[in-house]
Amino acid sequence: MTATYVIGLDYGTGSARGVLLDAATGEQIGSHTHAYRHDVMTQSLLDGTPLQRSWALQNAADYLDAAEEILGVLGRGRVIESIGLGFSASSPMPTTTDGTALSELHPGEPHAYVKLWKHRAAQPYADAINRVGGSFLRNFGGKLSGEWLLPKAAQIAGEAPHIWGAAGRFIESGDWLVWQLTGREVRSLGFAAYKAQYSETEGYPQGIVPGLSEKLSVPHRIGTPAGSLSEAWRARTGVGGRAIVAVAVIDSHVVLPAVGAVSSGCLVGALGTSAVYLLLNEQFRPLPPGIEGVAKDGSVRDLWCYEAGQAGFGDTLAWFVKAFPRGADEAESFRVYNREAAGLEPGANHLVALDWWNGNRVPLADSDLSGMLVGLTTETTGVGIYRALIESLCFGARTVVDLFEAGDFAINRVILTSGLAQNNPLLVQIMADVLGRVVEVPSIAHATAVGAAVHGAVAAELVNGFAEGTARFGARTFTPYRPRRESAAAYRSLYKNYRQLSDSQAVRKAMHDLNRAASLDRPAEETKSVA
Amino acid sequence: MTATYVIGLDYGTGSARGVLLDAATGEQIGSHTHAYRHDVMTQSLLDGTPLQRSWALQNAADYLDAAEEILGVLGRGRVIESIGLGFSASSPMPTTTDGTALSELHPGEPHAYVKLWKHRAAQPYADAINRVGGSFLRNFGGKLSGEWLLPKAAQIAGEAPHIWGAAGRFIESGDWLVWQLTGREVRSLGFAAYKAQYSETEGYPQGIVPGLSEKLSVPHRIGTPAGSLSEAWRARTGVGGRAIVAVAVIDSHVVLPAVGAVSSGCLVGALGTSAVYLLLNEQFRPLPPGIEGVAKDGSVRDLWCYEAGQAGFGDTLAWFVKAFPRGADEAESFRVYNREAAGLEPGANHLVALDWWNGNRVPLADSDLSGMLVGLTTETTGVGIYRALIESLCFGARTVVDLFEAGDFAINRVILTSGLAQNNPLLVQIMADVLGRVVEVPSIAHATAVGAAVHGAVAAELVNGFAEGTARFGARTFTPYRPRRESAAAYRSLYKNYRQLSDSQAVRKAMHDLNRAASLDRPAEETKSVA
Repeated sequence: MTATYVIGLDYGTGSARGVLLDAATGEQIGSHTHAYRHDVMTQSLLDGTPLQRSWALQNAADYLDAAEEILGVLGRGRVIESIGLGFSASSPMPTTTDGTALSELHPGEPHAYVKLWKHRAAQPYADAINRVGGSFLRNFGGKLSGEWLLPKAAQIAGEAPHIWGAAGRFIESGDWLVWQLTGREVRSLGFAAYKAQYSETEGYPQGIVPGLSEKLSVPHRIGTPAGSLSEAWRARTGVGGRAIVAVAVIDSHVVLPAVGAVSSGCLVGALGTSAVYLLLNEQFRPLPPGIEGVAKDGSVRDLWCYEAGQAGFGDTLAWFVKAFPRGADEAESFRVYNREAAGLEPGANHLVALDWWNGNRVPLADSDLSGMLVGLTTETTGVGIYRALIESLCFGARTVVDLFEAGDFAINRVILTSGLAQNNPLLVQIMADVLGRVVEVPSIAHATAVGAAVHGAVAAELVNGFAEGTARFGARTFTPYRPRRESAAAYRSLYKNYRQLSDSQAVRKAMHDLNRAASLDRPAEETKSVA
Repeated sequence: MTATYVIGLDYGTGSARGVLLDAATGEQIGSHTHAYRHDVMTQSLLDGTPLQRSWALQNAADYLDAAEEILGVLGRGRVIESIGLGFSASSPMPTTTDGTALSELHPGEPHAYVKLWKHRAAQPYADAINRVGGSFLRNFGGKLSGEWLLPKAAQIAGEAPHIWGAAGRFIESGDWLVWQLTGREVRSLGFAAYKAQYSETEGYPQGIVPGLSEKLSVPHRIGTPAGSLSEAWRARTGVGGRAIVAVAVIDSHVVLPAVGAVSSGCLVGALGTSAVYLLLNEQFRPLPPGIEGVAKDGSVRDLWCYEAGQAGFGDTLAWFVKAFPRGADEAESFRVYNREAAGLEPGANHLVALDWWNGNRVPLADSDLSGMLVGLTTETTGVGIYRALIESLCFGARTVVDLFEAGDFAINRVILTSGLAQNNPLLVQIMADVLGRVVEVPSIAHATAVGAAVHGAVAAELVNGFAEGTARFGARTFTPYRPRRESAAAYRSLYKNYRQLSDSQAVRKAMHDLNRAASLDRPAEETKSVA
């Protein structure tokens, strides 16, 4: 009997990664990574056209190069049952009605390119939309982020009407890639719900951006097939077999089935540069105040997935070791700081920090806030500060957990994923102590790509749903970190201070004033209005 | 005509310094420094007897060695008209009625030694006295410091009754040194008023420590003669001439006539490890809330001298450059940080700090408070933090100035003295910007010892009062730093944030809780009671 395989693709910010798994055993056979040729364009376009501050674009053609190489390396001459893919979002682009990226037709026009998730120049349009409001904001705390699709559409319509007019479609890059691979425009409910505020009962929000409705299409639930890999792509890559392509998934959500999170009550924390927390729940409950958004069938089938996050996480620690190095390079500094910080007892640094180095997402959704350190004395050490930063990140995570519990959600399992979770046991142990509960770190390589592969396997009906997909392809071992009783008690007390400082009006006012002082340095940003 | 001279002595924490000045011209002829043989004893006595935490003792005999050497080096064979001396305070010791230090008789008994100003183990006794209160606290904000004489007396009486019983006298080290040099016990109104809450109308506080009254004596105003150098000391040092010895003065006050501060409306900031601010005023006005103390005739004749301070100043900056070095040694780190910080505009670091690394003296008199940094982002730099520390120290100084102005005091001149003021022009410029007024830095070497010399010259009637003494012996040039208009405006805004954060209950509560967490590490300190 011929071996059969599944492929999972993880389209991140700077590169795409693929994994090849044995379809029958789930064994990971190989992986391949391809960096995007033009990376993220923040200063200028390919032809040198300069970009304004806060812009972040990508070139759609780079995604196709990555797909061709990865599918070729992993799939050539093999029987591929399915292809699943996760994609960073919201990263939409304008295309013609046949799916041609407008950047191919208008290479000198910034608005013709993919607006990457971290393109922040659309924030004034989000603010304008938020001022008007609407029922479509109900499940998103009443507030769009400038990173999402609607404000990015509004920005093009407002600033480049000729491009907006030429755009037959406005589409997430993940959906566009599925379209390219299969020849069919089959969009994902995950992108539509979380990034374009689509709901199955009310559809897309109406009347926000002129002409937008005609450029969208009805999305499909995740875990369903979009189509088969097209003949043209089979020729380019040498992939054989059914090669069912699943609808795309937001990259931070697609990881769930790879780390065992496919049932109600699982909370997954993806601890990267920033942190994303996803809580799965069978029943709909109103969004707890401060939690960012919720949708059903956009992450794992038949479950509501609540989303929350911290604007800064790993980058806060990286900032510290870069600003105050303790070794020849960042890795050595991290080793030194981690080793020494592990020797401190909870509370022994006599510090508490607010972890808002990049602003606050939960519960205040205020990017103008900033970080704070309290308790400094002439006995304070660098390593004491480093540990206080770790502790504050865990306090931020606990704030998320507390909001869910206050909203009467049952959390029966906490899973932490990402490189940071695997490489920094001190941080994970402090997280267990601060949360006062067991946290588990799955042992799995390339979890996001594996999660995408599970989506493909579900869509191709190789497995009977996500639970079986997880069992076959997902992590098999988890390292549990148990809370230490005395540490947990010490952190309960420090966490109270953290929350009181979070709630202090004097503190927030100082941060806002300092941020305003910051904006005096910069060119003024206009207030935008939308139709 | 034979040249005549005056000598000024500055008894600091680790060493004593003397200066020799030409009595007629005021010219500085020479100086000499002598480190105390046993320095500060914090771990054990000379014989190895261990000391408890927070103790800081000195050996009285070391002061005599210093006097013998300095007077010999500077005065041997010369006609010395007068000797003035400043001494760190409150640094009292028990002696017999003939002035023999009890440490000579009980060398293994910690309570027999000088309790240096920074001996903090008497704080529980201060707390106990403060709980009872009394009219003697009226000019001291209702609160004794644990560093002062009464709690130190209470500690000996409570913990070593045999030593207390053997003590015929309990006397400031500066007064004791005058006694040794002249053979006459003539105490200083400066020590008595500021450190033992003596008032000319009510005398010493009564009934606070059993037996204390008999161990004290009526003090004399500063600028008066205590006597002449004794024959024995003339023999030991070779000093000739009248050698009138003035009553001793608190070292932080004795500097005033050396830096031109001898008239109403002068505010002098001595910016050392910590900072002391002295404001001279002709009229008595009630102590503004938050200001620490006031007395008349204890610093400059016929003037009220109001005292306030910051618990941390230079040591906060030293802490930073030691914790996060930028060079081979501390001096190089300071150079690098100062050079780069000078390149930043006010507000460009987007940070504000509370300068409470050693607790707060004014206006809260709370040593359990600690430092704070607000506004941290992943763009924050080490040099930005360094500059924020400097700015916070200046905000702390402005708090003192504001309290005086709110109390309707006229400040017509601000003079900053100390090595830090002379060596860190960036700090002094920021001080001018933050205060929004001209600040002046006198050019003078060994200012404290020169101030002591002026006291001697006044006592010996070589000059007709302090104004003439200052004109002859004091600083002749002052470097003015003028506030820069735009910087002053930026700092007015930041100072508002500083004050709002200072007033935040959430912030103070966090600091207290963190400090309490600190005390869990340490052996419990008993609550003391006094008779």
